[in-house]
Amino acid sequence: MSEPTRSERFLRACRGEPVDRPPVWLMRQAGRYLPEYRAVRAGVSFLEACQDVDRAVELSLQPLRLVGTEAVILFSDIFIPVVGMGVDLEFRPGPVIAQPIRTLADVEKLAVSDPRASVPYVFEILRRLRSELEAEEVPLLGFAGAPFTLAAYLVEGKGSKDFAALKRLMYCEPAVLHALLERLTEMTVEYLNAQIEAGAQAVQLFDTWAGLLSAADYREWVLPTHQAIARRLKRAAAPLILYVNGGAHVLDAMAESGADVLSLDWRVELADAARRVGRRVALQGNLDPCALAAPPARIAAWVRELRDAGRAARGHVLNLGHGCLPETPVAGVRAFTDAVRALT
Amino acid sequence: MSEPTRSERFLRACRGEPVDRPPVWLMRQAGRYLPEYRAVRAGVSFLEACQDVDRAVELSLQPLRLVGTEAVILFSDIFIPVVGMGVDLEFRPGPVIAQPIRTLADVEKLAVSDPRASVPYVFEILRRLRSELEAEEVPLLGFAGAPFTLAAYLVEGKGSKDFAALKRLMYCEPAVLHALLERLTEMTVEYLNAQIEAGAQAVQLFDTWAGLLSAADYREWVLPTHQAIARRLKRAAAPLILYVNGGAHVLDAMAESGADVLSLDWRVELADAARRVGRRVALQGNLDPCALAAPPARIAAWVRELRDAGRAARGHVLNLGHGCLPETPVAGVRAFTDAVRALT
Repeated sequence: MSEPTRSERFLRACRGEPVDRPPVWLMRQAGRYLPEYRAVRAGVSFLEACQDVDRAVELSLQPLRLVGTEAVILFSDIFIPVVGMGVDLEFRPGPVIAQPIRTLADVEKLAVSDPRASVPYVFEILRRLRSELEAEEVPLLGFAGAPFTLAAYLVEGKGSKDFAALKRLMYCEPAVLHALLERLTEMTVEYLNAQIEAGAQAVQLFDTWAGLLSAADYREWVLPTHQAIARRLKRAAAPLILYVNGGAHVLDAMAESGADVLSLDWRVELADAARRVGRRVALQGNLDPCALAAPPARIAAWVRELRDAGRAARGHVLNLGHGCLPETPVAGVRAFTDAVRALT
Repeated sequence: MSEPTRSERFLRACRGEPVDRPPVWLMRQAGRYLPEYRAVRAGVSFLEACQDVDRAVELSLQPLRLVGTEAVILFSDIFIPVVGMGVDLEFRPGPVIAQPIRTLADVEKLAVSDPRASVPYVFEILRRLRSELEAEEVPLLGFAGAPFTLAAYLVEGKGSKDFAALKRLMYCEPAVLHALLERLTEMTVEYLNAQIEAGAQAVQLFDTWAGLLSAADYREWVLPTHQAIARRLKRAAAPLILYVNGGAHVLDAMAESGADVLSLDWRVELADAARRVGRRVALQGNLDPCALAAPPARIAAWVRELRDAGRAARGHVLNLGHGCLPETPVAGVRAFTDAVRALT
C-alpha cells in the first residue's frame, strides 16, 4: 500500500477501511502543557481566545507543528455555542453559569438561534484552518459538547463531583430535563452541521460526564440524544466520533449511538472493547494522559500494545483516554506521536 | 425462617448464608444531611469530632435511631490512622497534607507504630459502641482507607481530578510508590485487626480512588495490597467488605481480592456483577445516592429491583453506591430503609 496522506489515513481509520497504521492525535492537544500555547494566551481570557479568529487558528495549528499530531482540531470550548444561546457564563477556569437552569421557564429562555449567526467566529476559524491544511492534506476536526454534559453544567451552574442538582431534576422533574436536552440536541445538530459545512472533515461529540450515570439512566437520558444527533448529521461528509469519560459500563449503549468511532477513556481495555463492539464501530484511544510522564521507551511500548489491541477493532485512531493535562510533559507527547509514526 | 436479629441477618448476608431479606445500611450514614449531626458537629472541627469519644459514639449511633439503618459504622475518617503515623494534615473539608510524600526519605519518615497506641480513641469508640449495641444485637462495622487511596492523597497532597503526581510516581519512580504502599498495607492490617479486637464485627476497606486506574495498573498496584490485607486479617471474627468507586472495569480483579463482600458503586449493574463474580463473593449496594431525592414510591421500586438483582449473588447487603451527600434528603434515606424492611 502506498503511503496515504494524513487525511486519507485518518478518514479511512474512522470508516473502518484498511490503513498502513493508525493515525494519531491527542484530545486537548492545544493546551497549557505547551509553552507556545501559554505565550499566545498570555493576557487573554479563555473566552477571548476562543472568539479571536487569528489567535484560535494559531492555537489550533500549534500541535501539528510542535508535537507532530496528525489531525488538527478546532480550538474552542464546548460552551461556546451555549454562549450563543444567550447564557451568561465565565471560565474560572471551568465554566460558571450566572443563573443555573432549573425550571421550564429557564429552559424556554435559551435562544434557539442559528449558530452561524450567533457564533460566526467558530466557522470562520474552521474555514481558515481548512484552507491552511488543504495543501498538506491534514484532517480537520470539529467538535461539540453533547447535550447531557452541557445540561449537567447548565443545571449545576458549575462543575461538580456528584451532580446532585442535575440528578434531582432527573428523578423529580424529568420534564424539565427532557426539555433542556431537546433544546440542546437541536442546537448541537445545527452547530455540528454548520461546522461540517465550514470544512470540518470529522466531528467529535464530547459527553464527558455521561459516564456518571448508571447504564439504565444512560439509556434513558443520554443514548437518545446521541442517536438523534447521529441520525441528523451530514455523516456522508464527516464521520462522527463519540467520547464518554468513565464509560466502561455503557460501552454497549455507546455502540448503539450511530457514531462511526467510539473514543474510549483509559479504563476501558481496548482489546476487550473491540470484542464487545465487534464490527459496528471503530475505536479511538486510549492511553492514560498521565502515562505521558513515563520514559519514551515505555510510552512506545504502550503505543505498540494499543496498536496490537486495536487490530481487532473495525478501525483504530490512536489517542489518549482523556485530554492532555497542564502537567503533561511536551517530550511525552512527542514520544507518543513519534512512536505511532514508527509503527510498521 | 424465624426473624433473625440484625446482627445475624447482616453477618449471614456477608457470608452468603440464607437470610429472609437483605440487611440495609448506608455509606456515610452519619453525615451532614442529618440536622442532628450538624448540631453535634457545631463549633467542632471534623478531626476533633473524630477524636472525641463521646461525640463520635453519639454521631455513630444517630442513623440507627433517626433513619432506621440496620448496622452502625464507626464515626471516623480514613485519614485518622495516617495522623497516627505522624503526618501533618488538616480537613478543609477534604484532607490537605502539609508535606506531600514524593521520595523514599518521605516514606521512611512515616512512623510504623501500633495504632492501639497512636490513635487509642478509635478503639475506645468501638468498645463503647459494641457495649451499647450488644443488647439490641445491631452489627458494628469498622473501616479503613485502602493503601492506594491513602497513598493517592499523601502523594498528591490533596484531592485531585487526575492524580497526575501520583501517576508520575507510578510510571517514573515505582520503587517509591511500592515502598509507600507497603508501609500503608502494614499499618492497615494492624489497624483493622485492632478494630476487630475492639468489637468490630465486620470491616470495610474503602479504595475510593482505585477505579481511576486501568485494569492492568489496578492489578499491578492495587490488587496485591487487598490480597495482603485479606490474608492477614482475623477474618474468622469479621467479614471483609471491599469498596471501589467507579470500579465497573476492575470487578474481576476485585473478586480475586479475598474480600467476602464487594461494595459496588451505582454504575455497576448488580445483576451483571452477580453473574460475573458468581459464588465467590457477596455483593453490597448500590443505589445512586442522588436517587434518594426521588419520591418514596420510586425509591421503594428501586429497592425491589436491587433485591431481585441481588438474588443471583452469593449474598446481598442493601446500601448506596457511594456515601450519602450533604444534599441527601432525610426523608429519602428513611424511604430507602423502610422499603428494605417492607421486602418480603
